[in-house]
Amino acid sequence: MMKKGPLTIKDIAKDLNISPSTVSRALKDNPDISPETRKLVQEYAKKYKYKPNALALGLRTQHTNIIGVIVPELANHFFSGVLSGMETIAEEKDYHVIVCQSSEDYQKEIRNVQTLIKARVCGVLISQSKTTTIYDHYQELLDNDIPVIFFDRICTGIDTDKVVVDDYSGTFTAVEYMIRTGCKRIAFFSAPLHLEISKNRKNGYLDALRKYQIPIDESLMRIADTKPLGYDKAMKILQEPHRPDAFMAMNDYTASGILLATKRLKLRVPEDISICGFSNSNISQDTDPMLTTMDQHPKTVGEEAMRLMLEKIENPDNVSRKNRIIKTSLIVRETTKPLLNDFIS
Amino acid sequence: MMKKGPLTIKDIAKDLNISPSTVSRALKDNPDISPETRKLVQEYAKKYKYKPNALALGLRTQHTNIIGVIVPELANHFFSGVLSGMETIAEEKDYHVIVCQSSEDYQKEIRNVQTLIKARVCGVLISQSKTTTIYDHYQELLDNDIPVIFFDRICTGIDTDKVVVDDYSGTFTAVEYMIRTGCKRIAFFSAPLHLEISKNRKNGYLDALRKYQIPIDESLMRIADTKPLGYDKAMKILQEPHRPDAFMAMNDYTASGILLATKRLKLRVPEDISICGFSNSNISQDTDPMLTTMDQHPKTVGEEAMRLMLEKIENPDNVSRKNRIIKTSLIVRETTKPLLNDFIS
Repeated sequence: MMKKGPLTIKDIAKDLNISPSTVSRALKDNPDISPETRKLVQEYAKKYKYKPNALALGLRTQHTNIIGVIVPELANHFFSGVLSGMETIAEEKDYHVIVCQSSEDYQKEIRNVQTLIKARVCGVLISQSKTTTIYDHYQELLDNDIPVIFFDRICTGIDTDKVVVDDYSGTFTAVEYMIRTGCKRIAFFSAPLHLEISKNRKNGYLDALRKYQIPIDESLMRIADTKPLGYDKAMKILQEPHRPDAFMAMNDYTASGILLATKRLKLRVPEDISICGFSNSNISQDTDPMLTTMDQHPKTVGEEAMRLMLEKIENPDNVSRKNRIIKTSLIVRETTKPLLNDFIS
Repeated sequence: MMKKGPLTIKDIAKDLNISPSTVSRALKDNPDISPETRKLVQEYAKKYKYKPNALALGLRTQHTNIIGVIVPELANHFFSGVLSGMETIAEEKDYHVIVCQSSEDYQKEIRNVQTLIKARVCGVLISQSKTTTIYDHYQELLDNDIPVIFFDRICTGIDTDKVVVDDYSGTFTAVEYMIRTGCKRIAFFSAPLHLEISKNRKNGYLDALRKYQIPIDESLMRIADTKPLGYDKAMKILQEPHRPDAFMAMNDYTASGILLATKRLKLRVPEDISICGFSNSNISQDTDPMLTTMDQHPKTVGEEAMRLMLEKIENPDNVSRKNRIIKTSLIVRETTKPLLNDFIS
């Protein structure tokens, strides 16, 4: 107890050598936590005069019907689709949505959380920024009884409800489809691999290759999740001696960069190179040829996440955890070849 | 004074047969209003016990550093660029931005305003929805001393600072450019004409035609401001006997729809048909051929609007009005022809 300033949940967790989320739940007398641990935490908190964040609590005395959403970027077809799904469900019950963007910046995401607390939101839906690896600001929301739901880019380090896209199956389906059109060297361009979404996509990619006994080649896996990165890395890999004949891209932006590179190199799409995007964003129909891609059903993701949030707000004592997985759909357009006869069922 | 409920600024305006904004300013003793009118309004307000909106005032007793932004749609390159400009300037002075989208819906825009008041914002930046023709909700913000700045789609009915894109000159420049490449029948696809932005664009279009003595043909002017509308209306007009040889589009989405129609009709772009978009959005580099377009410098629009907002917040007694006009730049890509020799200087 050498620390200056008020005692936090994190301090208690450290002092007692248990997780902050256990402390938080023990303080709320959550039955998931053993009676011994609850007693231990509650007595410790009492002894050292633990007080929940006063600022946030003070602000929350006036209840609002405002729900905050934090997205990595607003100029993204997927997130704007998610938001419109969220708004539809919220407005049915007279809740209103305000949005902050983290711009993929951990520090800004912390400020987003503080801003939403000040704006007295009654819940926060979050898709994690790529650079966030510490979760205290999420925990602060929970500590102040502001429910949190993660969507798409979820945080496994925080115990709360989550809605994810079925990235594993989506990628498996897309890669399997390209294999069935005759592709044999499929490159995999993904976001950084510390993100759950990237791990799941990579597993889908690897399992599809394994199913068809296609050798796994680490040199075909690159970190590229924007149009310029897609372009640059495709330019390089396509000029290597044993070039890929297909690309599984992180999103349609990356796919459009790969497409541009193939055109500059006078390679034919899809005859020489197949490309599959992810998102079914509006650019996927503006490229020529139009992109084959996976529809992630962003409206459904947003609707489900908001439904979970409203349940939480309306039944704050229900401590069960829910995970929803939203299925994806393959949208075949012009950047992939027709199925080989062997595979047409 | 037959009305139930508290007396509003609007009631006073009606009773005295003057504008709500005059009443509002008279109540604040603004020197722009004549001493006689100020006295009249103030005595009337006193006599009938006028009180500024109590809810909003109550909420505003705790000052925040949150600034609200209302945009018609988030999934739009221009608005997301504007937002990033606003955030940059706001964060320099430790203000934070929360965003609502009106989805081009007047009723939703009203709810956005109420939500932002509840979230205790200290200012609101607005780009008006296409369906908004009544302005009481804007006036309510001003009546509660929450400064309002309009950007891009401004409201001329409300007396406050504004930041606009130079739509007139932008359109004039683009149309003039296509004339100088040899185009003679230039179609004009715009948003609904009650919007200031459309009026200014149309004037730019007409003045460019007049400068080069090109006859004005009403049949070439259509309301089309989305990709599907651009596609449908281009499909029709391109199959009429005396078809256009160029299109000036409201935005890049519309331009991409026009481009798709020309391709389906096997017309060559730019040899047979020239197309100019507006916005320099990311899709303008995903189409093939890539779009010639006008860059609206969205970041600059956002930065300027936020600078005006911070000035207003920090100097609430400064009642001077500011209008900023942000210049556009022509970005020549592949959907327009080269300049004719006569016009190369």
